[in-house]
Amino acid sequence: MAATMLIPALIDLKAGSRDWLVFVQAAGLTAVLCWLTSLATHHPEIRFTPRLGFLLIVALWLSAAVFGALPFIFSPLPISIIKAFFESMSGITATGATVLTGLDRMPRGILLWRSMLCWFGGLGFIGLGLLLLPSLRVGGIQLLHMESSDKSEKILPRIHQIATGIVLAYVSLTLVCTILYFVAGMGMFDAINHGMTTVATAGFSTHDSSLGFYAHNRAILIIATVFMILGALPFVLYIKAAMPQRRVSMSDPQVTLFFIIIIGFSAILATGLMLETGIGLVDAIIAATFNLVSVITTTGFATEDYTLWGAEALGIFFLVTFIGSCSGSTSGGIKINRLIILWQMASASLTRLILPNAIVKMRYGKSEITDEVAQSALLFIFLYMASLVAGATVLAMLGNDLGTAFTGALTALSNVGPGFGETIGPAGNFSTIGDPSLLVLSYLMLAGRLEIVTVVILFTRRFWTR
Amino acid sequence: MAATMLIPALIDLKAGSRDWLVFVQAAGLTAVLCWLTSLATHHPEIRFTPRLGFLLIVALWLSAAVFGALPFIFSPLPISIIKAFFESMSGITATGATVLTGLDRMPRGILLWRSMLCWFGGLGFIGLGLLLLPSLRVGGIQLLHMESSDKSEKILPRIHQIATGIVLAYVSLTLVCTILYFVAGMGMFDAINHGMTTVATAGFSTHDSSLGFYAHNRAILIIATVFMILGALPFVLYIKAAMPQRRVSMSDPQVTLFFIIIIGFSAILATGLMLETGIGLVDAIIAATFNLVSVITTTGFATEDYTLWGAEALGIFFLVTFIGSCSGSTSGGIKINRLIILWQMASASLTRLILPNAIVKMRYGKSEITDEVAQSALLFIFLYMASLVAGATVLAMLGNDLGTAFTGALTALSNVGPGFGETIGPAGNFSTIGDPSLLVLSYLMLAGRLEIVTVVILFTRRFWTR
Repeated sequence: MAATMLIPALIDLKAGSRDWLVFVQAAGLTAVLCWLTSLATHHPEIRFTPRLGFLLIVALWLSAAVFGALPFIFSPLPISIIKAFFESMSGITATGATVLTGLDRMPRGILLWRSMLCWFGGLGFIGLGLLLLPSLRVGGIQLLHMESSDKSEKILPRIHQIATGIVLAYVSLTLVCTILYFVAGMGMFDAINHGMTTVATAGFSTHDSSLGFYAHNRAILIIATVFMILGALPFVLYIKAAMPQRRVSMSDPQVTLFFIIIIGFSAILATGLMLETGIGLVDAIIAATFNLVSVITTTGFATEDYTLWGAEALGIFFLVTFIGSCSGSTSGGIKINRLIILWQMASASLTRLILPNAIVKMRYGKSEITDEVAQSALLFIFLYMASLVAGATVLAMLGNDLGTAFTGALTALSNVGPGFGETIGPAGNFSTIGDPSLLVLSYLMLAGRLEIVTVVILFTRRFWTR
Repeated sequence: MAATMLIPALIDLKAGSRDWLVFVQAAGLTAVLCWLTSLATHHPEIRFTPRLGFLLIVALWLSAAVFGALPFIFSPLPISIIKAFFESMSGITATGATVLTGLDRMPRGILLWRSMLCWFGGLGFIGLGLLLLPSLRVGGIQLLHMESSDKSEKILPRIHQIATGIVLAYVSLTLVCTILYFVAGMGMFDAINHGMTTVATAGFSTHDSSLGFYAHNRAILIIATVFMILGALPFVLYIKAAMPQRRVSMSDPQVTLFFIIIIGFSAILATGLMLETGIGLVDAIIAATFNLVSVITTTGFATEDYTLWGAEALGIFFLVTFIGSCSGSTSGGIKINRLIILWQMASASLTRLILPNAIVKMRYGKSEITDEVAQSALLFIFLYMASLVAGATVLAMLGNDLGTAFTGALTALSNVGPGFGETIGPAGNFSTIGDPSLLVLSYLMLAGRLEIVTVVILFTRRFWTR
């Protein structure tokens, strides 16, 4: 992390901005503190337990957010330490909610650093979802893992191959996205930044008006839409696709449903836009699809204030903020595979009420849903809803109006970015939110990113007792 | 039901109002239609199945709402048929949300009919919760039933004894409440109406300003507070208390937690009120406790607009709208026994993540929580949250602002009455909400009242196939 801070330092140095010192200071402090921590905690034999796993994951994200905030703190930006922490957490969790205004005139180093936080956060999250959490049995996403592991090593790659595959796919997507943005007319700096935050489905931009800055450029909006979707697909797919011809199934029910939802809702939104504003078919489809995909992939770019598109649109955007995209991607939210599992469970439970003696099997695609997977999906959804209600309650108590409190908690927990309403809606930002509220939102972003269970488990007494 | 309609007819006749004809017409139509239905569906041998149970319960509540709306439709009130249906559904589900204004000048027959709908709805719901739903294994409230049934007949009363006990307790509570209201200074008509809607935790009043009409009368507010609480306790307690001395445990974890929540939150609210408005200790305690109890028992009386009490208060009222009170009472919401079960499950799941081989038992008081109970509690909470999100989405699509849409869906589903915000908050009512939205809210009130599962199950394909 310290090393990566030198990249924005170089950019600023080259641009002649004195901000480069900010990054060198931050890099130095990060390197020294982490080196000392590593020395202090060094131990020849470490036994890996679930406890250690949970602790490490939370410590990793939390310290990334803390050290990631250093450049904002050292910079001349007029923001409090808590605002800096919020901005960094928003980046590393690939949420994309910002407290900064005046982005268009900001030193390039800071802008690049925000995008880099998103990019590393997104990459880390894919690894977390595909490699770490399944072995900790968190959140009902074991299914993805099991689909791989129960077919034996012969067909499927080993862990380090999966890790390499993820990095390769992620880097390639980012490169292609950046090049396409550049070709479509973005400046190189903008292309690099948006390339990183698009594939990470994070949503930080280099302009206050987000991608609305390029609203006249259809090609850029289409590229953004496509790469937000690619970032929100399970990365296992790319690894499977790259493997030599073998009998590996590429089908995943969550992907099918993901596309059905996007196409269905985009069609409704586009029709509404055409009828109400009278814009042409192509522009309506592009605007509708772009903004819908931006929310459902939990990216949070906006070309305009879609909450003003009318009541139906408001309902749709509210709903997809809950849903999110596919597990094993950079996207947040409840995620579609969990919704499928929950749907199967609810349906099985209802069947059992009608036919008490029936044996009902729950299926996810061709795999059977085991009790363990079902239970962890339920635990997730319960903690998600409880966190949402508790978060909204605390935010309301801190003086936010109920709409801001509820949709703020929701957008943070789902790692989307913008909420609803004048303050934190797509046309606003989090700069006017008080510091205590920003801390609550930071917690929700962290919890949402780490599939909630990972964070909540640290608050149980059992975790800290032998 | 037709017979009970003659009571308001008599009241109107005695008062010299021509409205008495309204009730006679409604009674006639109800009697004829129900008699014909009963003839048409008569069958010498009816086999009772779960399917029939679900169908009957929903049909019962739905037809009660339809026939209960007839007096509103036939009356000269300037409201649409859908508004009349909403008002009737709000009564029979003991919600207490109203579309009527000018209550203070309204014919007495209509006012009494509203209160009677609440009262019968409340009684029916206790019976449903204690007698019917447990045998249909709905909603994780089997525990109450099991606590009874696993101790054999010797100690515990049979079903018809339970039913008699419920009716006796309910009628006695209503009578005592009415008499106390009268003694405290209410007119007899007001005392009867508020007696019925207090014990039913429904919240209809005979005044536009609800119990705010009596805000100067401390005794009335205290009586209301006490009897709302009594209506929100499990009625099994009253039956047990009336039984001759035997070793029956009176302890129920949900009751303990219920009182802890009331005392804790009331103390916070009262402190806030004293600091902010400077009113005296006694008045602050009474106002805080009354309005908190009104919301947590899902009654929905209001003495003033408690959403203006500041941010902490707003958060507390928002939170308790979800919670609700005890199962086996007249109260709606998620209910505290379910929250205890869910808490135990979440805690057990988290423990299993830390100690994969641990055997964790879940307990509700002294009883073990079986898988069946746990699963039905989870099914309930999932359907509750899904209904809430879906309801809020549809209401937003129908043109309500997001705050009204979300808190409207919430208050309907929890059978509270008032929502938040200017339109449907404690100082407002549902008179300006559009007819399509009122239908959605009516559905949510019905679903919330019948523990959701009972209603949702009718929408499954399995229910209608052999």
